[in-house]
Order: sequence, then C-alpha cells, then structure tokens
Amino acid sequence: MNVHDYMQQVGRAARAASRAIARADTNQKNRALLAIADALERDHEKLVTANMQDLAAAEKAGLEAALVDRLAITEATVRSMAEGLRQIAALPDPVGEMDDFTFRPSGIQLGKMRVPLGVVGIIYESRPNVTADAAGLCLKSGNAAILRGGSEAFHSNQAIAACVHEGLAVAGLPAGVVQILETTDRAAVTELVTMPEYVDVIVPRGGKGLIERISLEARVPVIKHLHGNCHVYIDDTANPDKAFNIAINAKTHRYGTCNTMESLLVHEAFAEFILPRLAEAYWEKGVELRGCDRTRAILGDKVVPATAEDWETEYLAPILAVKVVRDLDEAIEHINAHGSHHTDAVVTEDYGRARRFLREVDSASVMVNASTRFADGFEYGLGAEIGISTDKIHARGPVGLEGLTSQKWVVLGDGQIRQ
Amino acid sequence: MNVHDYMQQVGRAARAASRAIARADTNQKNRALLAIADALERDHEKLVTANMQDLAAAEKAGLEAALVDRLAITEATVRSMAEGLRQIAALPDPVGEMDDFTFRPSGIQLGKMRVPLGVVGIIYESRPNVTADAAGLCLKSGNAAILRGGSEAFHSNQAIAACVHEGLAVAGLPAGVVQILETTDRAAVTELVTMPEYVDVIVPRGGKGLIERISLEARVPVIKHLHGNCHVYIDDTANPDKAFNIAINAKTHRYGTCNTMESLLVHEAFAEFILPRLAEAYWEKGVELRGCDRTRAILGDKVVPATAEDWETEYLAPILAVKVVRDLDEAIEHINAHGSHHTDAVVTEDYGRARRFLREVDSASVMVNASTRFADGFEYGLGAEIGISTDKIHARGPVGLEGLTSQKWVVLGDGQIRQ
Repeated sequence: MNVHDYMQQVGRAARAASRAIARADTNQKNRALLAIADALERDHEKLVTANMQDLAAAEKAGLEAALVDRLAITEATVRSMAEGLRQIAALPDPVGEMDDFTFRPSGIQLGKMRVPLGVVGIIYESRPNVTADAAGLCLKSGNAAILRGGSEAFHSNQAIAACVHEGLAVAGLPAGVVQILETTDRAAVTELVTMPEYVDVIVPRGGKGLIERISLEARVPVIKHLHGNCHVYIDDTANPDKAFNIAINAKTHRYGTCNTMESLLVHEAFAEFILPRLAEAYWEKGVELRGCDRTRAILGDKVVPATAEDWETEYLAPILAVKVVRDLDEAIEHINAHGSHHTDAVVTEDYGRARRFLREVDSASVMVNASTRFADGFEYGLGAEIGISTDKIHARGPVGLEGLTSQKWVVLGDGQIRQ
Repeated sequence: MNVHDYMQQVGRAARAASRAIARADTNQKNRALLAIADALERDHEKLVTANMQDLAAAEKAGLEAALVDRLAITEATVRSMAEGLRQIAALPDPVGEMDDFTFRPSGIQLGKMRVPLGVVGIIYESRPNVTADAAGLCLKSGNAAILRGGSEAFHSNQAIAACVHEGLAVAGLPAGVVQILETTDRAAVTELVTMPEYVDVIVPRGGKGLIERISLEARVPVIKHLHGNCHVYIDDTANPDKAFNIAINAKTHRYGTCNTMESLLVHEAFAEFILPRLAEAYWEKGVELRGCDRTRAILGDKVVPATAEDWETEYLAPILAVKVVRDLDEAIEHINAHGSHHTDAVVTEDYGRARRFLREVDSASVMVNASTRFADGFEYGLGAEIGISTDKIHARGPVGLEGLTSQKWVVLGDGQIRQ
C-alpha cells in the first residue's frame, strides 16, 4: 500500500474510533489506562530488548550522545511510564463536565459541556516515553490518537504499542483509539497534517525546525511549542535570599529543559549587591556568563560580552545572559521584545510591581517569587503534559487533559421559539 | 507607498496599540465605547450620506439586490450600532479576570488570568455595521483591531472609522487600537493574514469561498465560520406542540441566517402524525419541501425528491430537506455525517434520549426542545458576536468577548524553588 492510502486508512480508523472513545465512560477509560500500565511493567524486559535494537542502530548511525541518551529505556523508565498512566487514571474525567447553566431572558437555559477534540495527531522525536504519555492523555480526554514517533525509536515504540493495544482490548475499546504509525516514511507526516477530514489538531514535539516545518505544511490547527527563552527579573525590592535561590534554581536545576532561565535581568540599584554573590555560585557550577556592559563593569572580564543574539537565545546549556536594567518598565519591555512568551518570573516584595509584572508580561506562565522550573504539567497538577504551548489560541502553557478538549454550548428548553 | 509597506506600518501600529489597550482599565475602555456611540448618533446624517455614495456605486456596478440590501445604512441602523456599543460597554470586562487559585504540593499557588489575544484582523463583506460591532468587541476585550471591510462599503466604513477614532481620542487611547484599512487592494488581505509578527488571529466573516481562500493563505490562526447546515430531530416521544412550533420557527423565522434549520429529521413512528400538519404550515408560508421516499409516501408528490446533495446544503432560502429516520441513532449519525457542526436540536420528552443527543451530536450548539434560531451572540448574552465558530479549537459557536481572550497561568510564590 502506498503512503497516501495507508494514511487514509489510518485516518478513517481514527475518526471511527474517536466516536467510540468519546462515548466511553470514565471507568472504561481508566480500566484501559491501568491495563496498559500493567502490561508495560510485565513486559519491561521485552521493551528493553526492543530498545536495544534501536540503540544499536542509533550508535551505528552515529547519532549524537544526547539523542541516544533520550532514546534509552531502562526498567526505571518503564516503571515511570506505568506510573504516569496510573496518575492519568486518577485524574478527574474532563469529558461531559457541564457548567455555567443560567437562564436567558428568552427562557432557554444555557450552559457548556466539555467534549473531546476528536482525533489528535502527535509527531515527536526520540523519547519513547512520549508514546505512553500521549496515548494516556488522549485516551482519558476521549480523543483518538495517531502517533508518529521518530524513526530512531521505531522498535521501542512498536513494543509500547503492543501494550497499549492490549490495554484497549481489555477495556473493550477499539484498537483505532491509539494508532502508532508503522511507517517511518517522511511523506506520512505530510499526509497526517493535511487531512482535516480525519485529524482535528496536531501536536508536534521536538526541535524548533520540526515545528516550523510542520506549521508551514499543516492544513489542520497546530498546538505549537516553539521555544523557551525564559527570564527572571530581580527587582531592587527583592528579598535577597529568594532572589539568590530562585536565580540559581531557575538556571542550574536542569540545563536542557524549556522552562530553564536563559536570561537574568537585575535592577540597577540591586546589581552591585546581588550579582557578585550569584556569579560566584554560577561559576562554581560551571555556568558561563554573558553580560551587558554594566554587568561586566561589576563582575569583570570573566563575563563574556553579550551580543544582540544572546538576548534571543535558548541555550539549553550552562550559559546565562545577564543584563542590568533601569527599572521594571525596561524589564517588562525586554521580556516582551526578546522572550518567547513561555515562562517569566519576577522577584520582588513590592505589591504594585508584582501586579504589573503579572499583567503586562505577555507569556504563557508569569510568576512572582518562584522558579521558572515550576512551569510544567506535573507541577501544575495536569498529570502529564502533551506539550507546552507558546501560542495564545486555544491552550496556553502546559497542555494536559483540558487542552485536549473543547466546550460546546448546551441549550435546555421547554419548547421556546425565537420571537 | 506600496501595499506591503503600508500593511507593515499598519501592523506595527496595531502591535504598539495592543499594549496600550491591554493595559487600559475598564472605565477608560467604556468611555471610548460610549463616546463612539454618541459620535455615531450625532453623525447619522453624515453616515447616511457616505453610504449613499456606496449604494450609488453598487447599483452602477450591478450588485445583486440582497448585497445592496445588506449594504444600506438608515438612521435606524445607526441607532442600533450605537445601541450595540452601549451594550458592550455594559458587559463585564473579561480582561484581568483571575480564577482557580489553588496551592500545589510544592507550595506555589497556581491560577489563571484572562488576557487579550493581542491583534485581531477582521475581514468582512458588505454590512457596515460589522465595523462598529467588531471595533467595540475588540476594544472591550483589550485587543487592537485591523478591519478590512468590503470595497463596496468603503465610504460607509471610513465614515464609521471617523467616529471610532473620535471616541478613542476622547478616552485618551491611541488611534492604532482600531485601524480600518484605507486600501481596497486585494493584496492587503494577503499581507494581513501572513504577518504573524503583528497579527495574532484572523476572523473572516463572509461566504464560504472567502473563508476557504483565507484559511488556505493564512499563516496566523483563523477563527472560521464555514456554514450552518442545522438540523431539528423530532423524536417519537416529542410533545406535538413543541415539535410543531420549533420546526416552524427554526425554518421560517428567518431564511438567510446561519442558525436556520435546513434539514428536518422525524422519527418513523411520529412522521405520519406530525408531517402533514407541518407540511401544510410550510407550504402556506411558501417553503419548498424536498423529502426522502418515506416522506413522499406520507406527503405525496408535492414534495420534491431529495438528492444526496440536499442533505449537505445550506439553502439560506425557503427550502427544507425532510427525512424520516428509524430512531435516535440514525438521527445522530445523519447529523454528524452531513451537518456542519453548527447547531442542532432534538425535540423529545425522553430524558435518556435528550442526554444522548446532547452528548453525541458533535456540534458547537446542541439543544433540547428549543429552536436552533437561539444560537447567536445576542441570545447567548455575549452582547454582539464577532462570528460563529464551526471550529473546535479555541472558541466554538458564537464568539464574543471571551473568545477574543486567552488565559495565562499565574504562579504566586514565596521563594519556592524546584526540588
């Protein structure tokens, strides 16, 4: 079968299955989730074996170490996939939730019902655990899923797929609820993002290049996660300990995550006091600092001069851009102009400035006196996350079950007609 | 200036103004809305005069009567535009609304804040009243608007624009908050829908052709209103009077609106009882019936045989497709397969069937015992509406102030860092 015909068949099966999963009740969906979790744990050896095939091929192909690292499955990875599914099972079911029912002057009673989106297409690279997370989130939110993993994780994903299908069968749900593509042909992605009759939304997870390519091609809505250029702004009213702890944690807790701070802004009246303390700690951890002229005037030549590009960069590495700013206004302006609208934090004890930062910084997550590292689905209580949206339309920030649903209007009448 | 440079300038002005209007407080926005309303009423003669220029040109160009009709401005039209703006001023301000603040196990307190989308581009045909409605809704929801009206309404729209800008000036808001394009060049639309750096969402209002063309071109999200192929399903448990009144109202209250019923489905056990009564009333009002074989067996040859195309058609005319169905399942299946996911209603006294219809019909508005004609922004209490979305992503159904906003995550901390 050619790729077009194969994808049409996958699309039709997904659309049909989406009706079944939309109607499935909470118990049935949870039964499937728990059965998948059990199957994964039982088959952990099979998964590791399949993964070794992928790892061997990756090493042979000379894949870079970071990628190979993300590809690896251990018994611990399998347990955490299973744990993730059990957490999703424990979350309240968003489907069918009704609220806001009020009477209108005409006598109709108007409210809203939360419903699945339909069919969700997910395109991702490397990490096989996305397969289990995405399947679990789509299933619980009543959506059918079409998963397209990276070719480098092909065997791992097929092994996980077997567990997913076993779990669906245990709960009496059709296999079409979660389909994992059996082709690694790039043309399948093009088909997937251009069949609005079968796919309601696309979630790409991967590098900026992948996401831009898919957005350009897509004829269905895309929930985009472009990049995370996150800021912490330390105001001159900051509590010094909070400022120190947050600035260190936001940068050094993990270097490769999208909610890691990439630029630090410091109020000019606070810079001479806090920057030397911070620089010492950063350097001790091997973080390279790239600063504006005023930063270098305080910290000396060990600070690399920052170029215009540094303010735009998501390093995903032990590098930090540092800028001394005049005041809150300059900080907000800098963040809105150079940030990526992902996550930004202020450290301040001033009530009015905290309110202004929250309101005026145009990002998916805005924080007062907390580390940017909190911006993820797990810390926000969404269970897992299907991605972190840097769009404003539909879902913003970490996308969990709710982001995979929509609300329809419900009108309850007693025979009302329009006058 | 060429179109590209002109649109870049418009885009930059809109982006800058979007920051000002996002920060504006409720009083300032309401002051602008009321001042625009006053200016429109005061200038009603100027508006009618400008409109006469457009009408004369339209007649000379041989525009069809329905279009000329939608183009006309009378003193009454002006009063209703002003009234619409006063209603928007009276609605609660959605911007900055915060809710759902709960503590997470880490100690952070997490909630959501409603915020404007930024810059909204609206592309529409004929009706000059859209200019006032759209300006009002964008202004109140804290967005900057770029309005592109039809070339046939150019003078009318410019006259309305003068009132809008006067109102903005009275409230101390920049003119860039509402820009009405001063060119009728088609290339301006292409520019508008392909500048994501300046435009956050596009709302096209017009025929299916316009919307499909724009969706295909757009590189920014589009809130689409494709078409309204609405159904009423009369179950055999229906109350006969409710069924009769709703079926007549949904079809004959207005023929040209998107929430008008286009197909009537009747349970086979109820058809012989209700269809003759209904047919008599429809025919008296000059409504042509196109029916399935079973409908024709009951009502005779005066019913035109329905073709496959009839089930898909939005007539926007005194024509109704009629089908006798076996049961609720066939009705739901028919609606999901042939409808346009806009608005569909069931008439029934059966609790379980009402619940199933609400849940399983995949439309923006689902109704029990009420006329489909209720599906609009005014009846739903949204004030005006910027459109009715047939998409599932972001806003669904009538889109008012809330649909022009998004929610960001707010984290309130006391120095928390991620462990």
